[in-house]
Amino acid sequence: MITVISATNRPNSNSLKIAKNYVQLMEKQGVEAKLLSLEALPADFISTELYNKPSENFQQLLNEFIIPAQKFVFIVPEYNGSFPGVLKVFLDAVHPDTNRGKKAALVGVASGRAGNLRGLDHLTGVLHYLGIHVHPNKQPISSVLAMLDAEGKIKDENIIKVLEKQIGEFIKW
Amino acid sequence: MITVISATNRPNSNSLKIAKNYVQLMEKQGVEAKLLSLEALPADFISTELYNKPSENFQQLLNEFIIPAQKFVFIVPEYNGSFPGVLKVFLDAVHPDTNRGKKAALVGVASGRAGNLRGLDHLTGVLHYLGIHVHPNKQPISSVLAMLDAEGKIKDENIIKVLEKQIGEFIKW
Amino acid sequence: MITVISATNRPNSNSLKIAKNYVQLMEKQGVEAKLLSLEALPADFISTELYNKPSENFQQLLNEFIIPAQKFVFIVPEYNGSFPGVLKVFLDAVHPDTNRGKKAALVGVASGRAGNLRGLDHLTGVLHYLGIHVHPNKQPISSVLAMLDAEGKIKDENIIKVLEKQIGEFIKW
Amino acid sequence: MITVISATNRPNSNSLKIAKNYVQLMEKQGVEAKLLSLEALPADFISTELYNKPSENFQQLLNEFIIPAQKFVFIVPEYNGSFPGVLKVFLDAVHPDTNRGKKAALVGVASGRAGNLRGLDHLTGVLHYLGIHVHPNKQPISSVLAMLDAEGKIKDENIIKVLEKQIGEFIKW
Repeated sequence: MITVISATNRPNSNSLKIAKNYVQLMEKQGVEAKLLSLEALPADFISTELYNKPSENFQQLLNEFIIPAQKFVFIVPEYNGSFPGVLKVFLDAVHPDTNRGKKAALVGVASGRAGNLRGLDHLTGVLHYLGIHVHPNKQPISSVLAMLDAEGKIKDENIIKVLEKQIGEFIKW
Repeated sequence: MITVISATNRPNSNSLKIAKNYVQLMEKQGVEAKLLSLEALPADFISTELYNKPSENFQQLLNEFIIPAQKFVFIVPEYNGSFPGVLKVFLDAVHPDTNRGKKAALVGVASGRAGNLRGLDHLTGVLHYLGIHVHPNKQPISSVLAMLDAEGKIKDENIIKVLEKQIGEFIKW
Repeated sequence: MITVISATNRPNSNSLKIAKNYVQLMEKQGVEAKLLSLEALPADFISTELYNKPSENFQQLLNEFIIPAQKFVFIVPEYNGSFPGVLKVFLDAVHPDTNRGKKAALVGVASGRAGNLRGLDHLTGVLHYLGIHVHPNKQPISSVLAMLDAEGKIKDENIIKVLEKQIGEFIKW
Repeated sequence: MITVISATNRPNSNSLKIAKNYVQLMEKQGVEAKLLSLEALPADFISTELYNKPSENFQQLLNEFIIPAQKFVFIVPEYNGSFPGVLKVFLDAVHPDTNRGKKAALVGVASGRAGNLRGLDHLTGVLHYLGIHVHPNKQPISSVLAMLDAEGKIKDENIIKVLEKQIGEFIKW
């Protein structure tokens, strides 16, 4: 099972739009994926989930999206030159042995030009620490606003092509 | 003005203990510093403060600890191979132009052996992005449990020496 | 085929000693590996090999150790807080498409305590850029001088155990 | 004294062109700078200078460009997703205490779009390790070929503006 994670809790984010496109691009290659938006994290997450056993609600989220998944795709916006704090808060709340040996693909999202390259590097360090394999084909999407149409569909053919290539490699991996 | 930031909201953390020692070591060199523990972040922080104007409470915290400070010391525990998500959530909630040109010193805290070296590197990338100068003398504290006595005082003379040296350089900077 | 690379041209380096131990530990698990020490790089390497077609001698080295290998183990000492420049010079001289899709395991070597953690992170970034998969189980060896006996054998049982575990995972990968 | 370092030994490199522009932009602000191109490294550098005392020639280079300098500007091309191996070889050959407390500004150069962002991050880690202050205003130049005219002058007004701003900040620093 594959879970695509939109790595921000910002309402109606560009990353969520990219994530929805990504799930559809996977379907075109015959693969089902679940979509987890970090908007799902409850408001009091940093108080309730970081240093305790998971609450019933969070355990349910883990049971549906994290524990059964063998592969993850992280769609990661750039916040202050790296990945969102909310993504790390989420990872900090998951038992560090939960995902050892699993596999991850990374997509960066930025309004600027470097496509959150640094955020993907930082995330690679954290995922490797957690024993998660990271596919070397990482896709940084720059100038994301110009890449999406009014319905939130990716309109840039080049982006679609590189994402399709990444998906093809990740499925077979 | 200098603010020492204990970069986790974990209750009664070792980082907070180190931070209190750090404030006292600064006093010994004749410098007052404020202490901000990220325990102060309200439970619903990721819901209320990330994509809106600061709430009144958060603005008050910024007014007391962040806006008037010219220098910051970050005491940063290692969570999953990097710095805590809560620290990045905090930084993501502060307007990115708030601290340009200010100065930071970094102290890593870990129960393992590398003293959160990677977390300090990641944090350097984020702080530089925010226009904050980072002092090259970064102090990673390893095996933190063995470094503290029962009252939370640093008992390791070597650690005290390297922190005093860091403080001396940081004050004059 | 697997090539173990001792990533420095320093004569009689501790990294080369670790690399020889590593090859023997692989043999104990039934796997042959070639050993390439970067001492093999000719004295005028930065002049002759960086911006030209490989010389006959360098092509021979590539033909023996790099092109037929499907997996690499990098034994990487810490030089000035990262990996040796000589390793990057070597990688810069190899055509960037040579090793796409291959696999690498990383071992850090340092006289200090962090086992060249930063060097392994930097190398991960470069190898991923080159399309090489990097195993998340990276082994930083600290205080290397205390780990070797007079004959250059690893005498620390813990180090041997973690390397054997890494080898086991890497062979099956 | 300020030394601008063109961080590759590639003959006639774009980085050297950028470096020459940079020196002129500094002159326009009333500051003299020396220019060191790593083309100056002798062919057998990795054999003669890494693990010995500096040769007479290299000592002369150090005496002219490194030891008297209080500030460095590194013009750093992207080689395989990071900075050139030759730059690290050069740094590995300089005694690690030579430049403690000095200051550096970084400019990335790439034919691609991220302007060698990762290389500047890696270099920051190394320079901080060496006790060198790194200015947070780092300038990554992307698509360098489109930025230069036939005489090797920067023709992009935006690039000139951001470099002039960086120079202004660096001079006063």
